[in-house]
Amino acid sequence: MSNQIKCSIITIGDELLIGQTIDTNSAWIGQALNKVGIWVHRRVAVGDVKQDIITALDEENKRSQIILITGGLGPTADDITKPLLCTYFNGKMIVDETVLAHVKNIFTILKRPMLESNLKQAEVPDVCTVINNAKGTAPGMWFEKNNVVYVSMPGVPSEMKAMMENSVIKMLLQKFIPNKIVHKTILTAGMGESFIAERLKDFEAALPPHIKLAYLPNYSFVRLRLTGTANDSLFLENEVTELHQQLKTILTDITIADSDTPLEKVVADLLLQKNATVSTAESCTGGYIAQTITSMAGSSAYYNGSIIAYAYDAKEDNLGVDHNELVQYGAVSETVVTQMLKGVLQKMKTNYAIATTGIMGPGGATADKPVGTVWIAVGNNNKCTTKQFNFRWDRKKNIELTTLNALNMLREFILETRSEEL
Amino acid sequence: MSNQIKCSIITIGDELLIGQTIDTNSAWIGQALNKVGIWVHRRVAVGDVKQDIITALDEENKRSQIILITGGLGPTADDITKPLLCTYFNGKMIVDETVLAHVKNIFTILKRPMLESNLKQAEVPDVCTVINNAKGTAPGMWFEKNNVVYVSMPGVPSEMKAMMENSVIKMLLQKFIPNKIVHKTILTAGMGESFIAERLKDFEAALPPHIKLAYLPNYSFVRLRLTGTANDSLFLENEVTELHQQLKTILTDITIADSDTPLEKVVADLLLQKNATVSTAESCTGGYIAQTITSMAGSSAYYNGSIIAYAYDAKEDNLGVDHNELVQYGAVSETVVTQMLKGVLQKMKTNYAIATTGIMGPGGATADKPVGTVWIAVGNNNKCTTKQFNFRWDRKKNIELTTLNALNMLREFILETRSEEL
Repeated sequence: MSNQIKCSIITIGDELLIGQTIDTNSAWIGQALNKVGIWVHRRVAVGDVKQDIITALDEENKRSQIILITGGLGPTADDITKPLLCTYFNGKMIVDETVLAHVKNIFTILKRPMLESNLKQAEVPDVCTVINNAKGTAPGMWFEKNNVVYVSMPGVPSEMKAMMENSVIKMLLQKFIPNKIVHKTILTAGMGESFIAERLKDFEAALPPHIKLAYLPNYSFVRLRLTGTANDSLFLENEVTELHQQLKTILTDITIADSDTPLEKVVADLLLQKNATVSTAESCTGGYIAQTITSMAGSSAYYNGSIIAYAYDAKEDNLGVDHNELVQYGAVSETVVTQMLKGVLQKMKTNYAIATTGIMGPGGATADKPVGTVWIAVGNNNKCTTKQFNFRWDRKKNIELTTLNALNMLREFILETRSEEL
Repeated sequence: MSNQIKCSIITIGDELLIGQTIDTNSAWIGQALNKVGIWVHRRVAVGDVKQDIITALDEENKRSQIILITGGLGPTADDITKPLLCTYFNGKMIVDETVLAHVKNIFTILKRPMLESNLKQAEVPDVCTVINNAKGTAPGMWFEKNNVVYVSMPGVPSEMKAMMENSVIKMLLQKFIPNKIVHKTILTAGMGESFIAERLKDFEAALPPHIKLAYLPNYSFVRLRLTGTANDSLFLENEVTELHQQLKTILTDITIADSDTPLEKVVADLLLQKNATVSTAESCTGGYIAQTITSMAGSSAYYNGSIIAYAYDAKEDNLGVDHNELVQYGAVSETVVTQMLKGVLQKMKTNYAIATTGIMGPGGATADKPVGTVWIAVGNNNKCTTKQFNFRWDRKKNIELTTLNALNMLREFILETRSEEL
């Protein structure tokens, strides 16, 4: 029999609460469990404070069948999770020989001496099932009490992820038979959230109660996600697919991807289809576009390289920007961004290129060019498109927005030139 | 009278729970409140589910004087927070004329038509104090009940941050007089967490109960944070400063910064002190080092530019790497990384440079060069240092680790050449 399996995540660590660390684990766990139909319905973060951890355990076990706990398992004194869980489940600490061998083996491979604190990692409560940590020394622990499963994992993302993928998800699916969940997403560009909602009014009103629509805006890029939940996965898949198709039809003019795909993947697929290459000439984005493109595995198939030119000299020497025009129009100008584009197409021998120049802030503004003024050019050896933007955010967001818009301009350019070639 | 003021953060949104969005707001709020002595002791994330939001409100008001709520205030149907809060505090919706004028003004500036859903943003519960949203249309709302303050803010980071900085923090400090908190941090490199802990055993044992030491490892870079809490800020400041000094003395050989400073800032300060410039020649990091350097405001004072050379041709044409040696030794070799370094020093006319080449994965490995094999070079026109690394992580982490180690190698190189010059 299948049913709605609910999970709570408890993350432990002062560094999360004072904001020294951003919690990326919870999002990863949410995605991983969602795929197998387990609904993370609450996430709680508490500090390295005994009573706060106990309160969280006491409360979450009233409303979830699964409680995943991350953090607090390191070898140092501020890591209090393991002894606390041992007491909470009325166990006593014993040395686990498998873990001990594993820890010793890791130190042998690393050619490092072992400390007593490292040996302590082999101690586990006798009331848990030990979960192997393929990427580190602290073992995971699986407890059960009153039909609730508690899994304690390290806070180090790579260790937690390996543990989830190798062991925890399989073990959960042996114990629980969750509902089916189907998500389908489209990515749109160029229309605000409320305008999209206006256009989708009738569509939303007609949605059955077990299918939800969510709006996930990232500036002028809005992701729309349909989520269906039901016992019967086959029927559900068809139902959500049909609605997804309707959504694409209604939003056909603004849809840039019909799956949960980052923009750099959309551009990558277009380049691969055309067997074409790209390069970037970046001033204000300082390499952010290059690193976004190369964050994708396999990007060497369509990306040759970039010239990041911050200084005037760098623009002249490496991109062939004309000295006099640079002085006359300024670095942030259509003339310069066009010359940068031409320069990098030649230097990197690519089919397409992107060029950016602008003022990202907080400094650098002039009377006629406030912070956020950006010129973007995209093109090939035959033609190019340029566009001026005026972003109003902080340095980081201005860089991100320039990157998103540059990639989207390239996407549009490739599609246009493709239709011209037909 | 001062006391320990406790805050809970409630974040609302399905996108957080299924992991489509990483929660960066909570970390930011934690940092901002921590600076003024308000202790975020719990964070709870719930979905767009009425009963789950109510449960979170009911529970958190039992243990916190301040509850900050983010998300669910948008103009679309999945945003249910505002009407829910209105009912929760027994209010009724009224149009706020100031907000209405603000919303209309924003649409006039953007030259966009207004929709009914946008006008609805001017409706607020009559039982709240409205907080101006300088960066968007959804107003913030301040409620009080049984001496607990509830503040509802939009989930869009830029809107929430502006609201906190312009209004909420000041309003909280008018109502509460928090304890003082003093943090002092040091950043170390090259020694594992447990080895540092071993060395700090006596130091930790001697810490007074109101001062805590936390270990925040990021691979081989470990941040150590001393946190003191007390009524008397003057005495506390001295106490933590004294312990911070002791810590630096004990760890002098591995300390690379004595404040909570990112590595790129440490390097930036060194370059500024020497009035020197840097450039990068990147293969495997694909611009990640450049964007890390240029993420700092004012980086144009010491950064000229980069050549990102992924393809063989790009390395030969733009960095002067010798074709025959590239073929003979392969792109991932000491010979090539050294030539890349020399090439970029010349092309970008800088005092120092960094060069990287490696296999970041998942593809690209060869028999003798597994994924994670990286060569890094740092140097100036007179000499250079090279080093081979073997990282064992995924693509993203391998790129990050290469960047951290490259910046640290440059830091060491600058310090060494400085002492030689004396």
